Amino acid sequence: MSKEKKIEVGITVKKDQDFSEWYTQVVQKAELADYSTVKGCMIIRPNAYSIWEKIQEYLNKKIKTMGVKNAYFPLFIPESFFRKESEHAEGFTPEVAWIANTEEGERLAIRPTSETIMYDSYSRWIRSHRDLPLRINQWCNIVRWETKATRLFLRTREFLWQEGHCVYETKEECDKETIGYLKEYKNLCEELLALPVLIGKKSENEKFAGALYTTSIESVMPDGRGLQMGTSHNLGQGFAKAFNIKFLGEDGKEHLPWQNSWGVSTRLIGALVMVHGDDKGMIIPPKAAENKIVIIPILTGDNEKVLKRAKEISKELNKFNGILDDRESYTPGWKFNEWELKGIPLRVEVGPKDIEKKQVILVRRDTSEKIAVKDKDLSKEVENVLGLIQENLFNKAKKLMESRIINVKNKSEFKKAINDGKAAKGLWCGDVLCEKEIKDETGAKSLNMPFDQPKNIKENCFYCGKKSNVICYFGKSY
Amino acid sequence: MSKEKKIEVGITVKKDQDFSEWYTQVVQKAELADYSTVKGCMIIRPNAYSIWEKIQEYLNKKIKTMGVKNAYFPLFIPESFFRKESEHAEGFTPEVAWIANTEEGERLAIRPTSETIMYDSYSRWIRSHRDLPLRINQWCNIVRWETKATRLFLRTREFLWQEGHCVYETKEECDKETIGYLKEYKNLCEELLALPVLIGKKSENEKFAGALYTTSIESVMPDGRGLQMGTSHNLGQGFAKAFNIKFLGEDGKEHLPWQNSWGVSTRLIGALVMVHGDDKGMIIPPKAAENKIVIIPILTGDNEKVLKRAKEISKELNKFNGILDDRESYTPGWKFNEWELKGIPLRVEVGPKDIEKKQVILVRRDTSEKIAVKDKDLSKEVENVLGLIQENLFNKAKKLMESRIINVKNKSEFKKAINDGKAAKGLWCGDVLCEKEIKDETGAKSLNMPFDQPKNIKENCFYCGKKSNVICYFGKSY
Repeated sequence: MSKEKKIEVGITVKKDQDFSEWYTQVVQKAELADYSTVKGCMIIRPNAYSIWEKIQEYLNKKIKTMGVKNAYFPLFIPESFFRKESEHAEGFTPEVAWIANTEEGERLAIRPTSETIMYDSYSRWIRSHRDLPLRINQWCNIVRWETKATRLFLRTREFLWQEGHCVYETKEECDKETIGYLKEYKNLCEELLALPVLIGKKSENEKFAGALYTTSIESVMPDGRGLQMGTSHNLGQGFAKAFNIKFLGEDGKEHLPWQNSWGVSTRLIGALVMVHGDDKGMIIPPKAAENKIVIIPILTGDNEKVLKRAKEISKELNKFNGILDDRESYTPGWKFNEWELKGIPLRVEVGPKDIEKKQVILVRRDTSEKIAVKDKDLSKEVENVLGLIQENLFNKAKKLMESRIINVKNKSEFKKAINDGKAAKGLWCGDVLCEKEIKDETGAKSLNMPFDQPKNIKENCFYCGKKSNVICYFGKSY
Repeated sequence: MSKEKKIEVGITVKKDQDFSEWYTQVVQKAELADYSTVKGCMIIRPNAYSIWEKIQEYLNKKIKTMGVKNAYFPLFIPESFFRKESEHAEGFTPEVAWIANTEEGERLAIRPTSETIMYDSYSRWIRSHRDLPLRINQWCNIVRWETKATRLFLRTREFLWQEGHCVYETKEECDKETIGYLKEYKNLCEELLALPVLIGKKSENEKFAGALYTTSIESVMPDGRGLQMGTSHNLGQGFAKAFNIKFLGEDGKEHLPWQNSWGVSTRLIGALVMVHGDDKGMIIPPKAAENKIVIIPILTGDNEKVLKRAKEISKELNKFNGILDDRESYTPGWKFNEWELKGIPLRVEVGPKDIEKKQVILVRRDTSEKIAVKDKDLSKEVENVLGLIQENLFNKAKKLMESRIINVKNKSEFKKAINDGKAAKGLWCGDVLCEKEIKDETGAKSLNMPFDQPKNIKENCFYCGKKSNVICYFGKSY
């Protein structure tokens, strides 16, 4: 069977030799996603969708505690809505897909983001300060008619995301919660996905179309490219003005509210592959894994006894939602490869000799370490090792990210870093024109500027030499 | 404030006087859904979306146990895919929305259902009997370009649903699981939503476009109209042929697999409103309610003490995820109306006298019954009463449905039943032409035919007088 042969061969390039090809192979061969016959679209297969469900579960719990409620707004947006907020219109129009059927006399867009359609409703729902804060989130599909080459999870014409859209009486509340959601994104990445991130503010050039300012979490991939992992925008009062959202304050007067919006998407799964994967395939951090373990009976003689023991183990380890791979038509070696390719964090092997010794063998996906565990300690030890894997993946990823960021002091160091396939960190002037020049000359953009900044910076901008204000990360980006 | 006034006024028509207007008012005033500026589209507001989340949670748990995995396929479907299965194409083409941007040379549809796009992938993924059964489900938005008048939850151009798509080696497996999923839908409706249903097989006229046969759960609404609540189709081998899905059997030969597909949608929320709602507004069955209780402090003097006690109660009843309505700017009466309108199953009142008596007052949303409960029994008694509410809603709904179904023996009884705004049950010939005639003459269609059928039917068809084979439900339908 051609399909089985492919899996047997596994990943045919090394991660550090051809990163791009390696990525595509891992995504497809680990059955995370597949290309669709429709250009630019992807199929999110169960192995990846289950990670998305873990992300949903994690975030829903957090944001519901923060007073956010989930809802669902229409896929279609009248063209005139985009025109209402001019910067927003300019930012999104080039990549909008339109539908052909329409008797309304105006074109309907397929949502590239939902500010406009949601705020149209908000203008009807919000009357009084008693209606605020209003905090709504939706999980949905998004369409952006990309013309650049498709990269599964990273650049596709359709992807899944959540978008939160909140309305407040004051700028202070809005500022506070804008950062609050961003911090939850950081927690999500670090705790669930074992992905370290850089948290900070986007430059003027890179902020969201229509926002007062944008905050983001970013990461640097093994190839040195920056990846925006999530954003939270303080939208100021611009959309409120454009969509006529007003509230009667406690003072009896009409006021414009403040708004934010914030989102993460299925691109997080792309980051997961790029950062944790290795030459054998995917590695899913235990907390994000639907199946945390795979149990493989070593069938070399007394199969009945071994299968019986494997089933007992599967039952005992029930809470890890293990896969019991008891197929008799595949060799243990074939199974090892398959589940390593798919990234199951921990393998549990049991053979006739293990049964005699009242033990099982655990094999860590991240380190390949083999650990013999006595039957009586099994559940506790599996729990323990899964914790170690989660921790190790994060620590490795953190070191990896740090190794990909070069401190630069001047233009030549910067250019060298970018040319070497690294990201850069430097003292910067923050100027719009300077960033434009950087982009034109090197292809790199600012990622973000950490919230914690040193005071009294005396050095000059690493790029243009003018007075510098701020530490900023730069890199080529996805 | 105009909005508050509206809520204060509540529902302005009686359910049994103007059912259609009553429904629209409940949906909008209970903030379940709202019309969008885009014709035919709806906004699913948090009060309804939380019910959808309960449905998702319930079904995901069940279908995952049955070996189904969630995934996500593209929104866009090439026109040529629809053409591959001719009955399917004919059934869906009239209501497809198309997108305008396309450089592929062929039109792209926005999915009205995903058989074709999924089976295109299946044909690449399935090689061997070892790849079967393949069981995939997706939760997504669906677009059908309706031209009839919009009814929130019931007929909109976009709605949310899940669609399961499975592939099997044999017809027997496929038959068995087709019914298996349908039975889970019945459980979902009855256990979670307290909605009784009729379970059975659709007629030839009413089966899914491209299916071998369709099974369904149906309900009869208070206005006597049938509502299809969920379907499960045995698709036979037609799609497999059309999409070239084949597998190598254990016998070393190539075979065509058998397929089913099955779905429920957000229209279930419409049924929930129609069946359980009353003249005061919505009633959410406790198991489907995000907030099972609302706690209202009766503030008539010693507010501090009462608020403190209300907070304690809220904490103690934490597991019911209660709303503590401690707003001081609204009267208790105003609050009672608001939460009754929104359908919170149980109200917990506490005032200064209750504190003295070491009690609280529970008020059931379904019966308006007031129950004084001693503080020490609070949590247990709330649990108990919520159970009674769930049970009572189901029993009431069952009686209501049964009262809306008339046993008919002949054409005139049938016509009278339909004219009286009822559904009908009768012995039927099952003939395609007879059903066409029924539809043309009365506007009624078959709903479904119960799986349990009497043997040796001797009576003739209630409508055409020919030999009858089967008991069947009929009605005008949504």
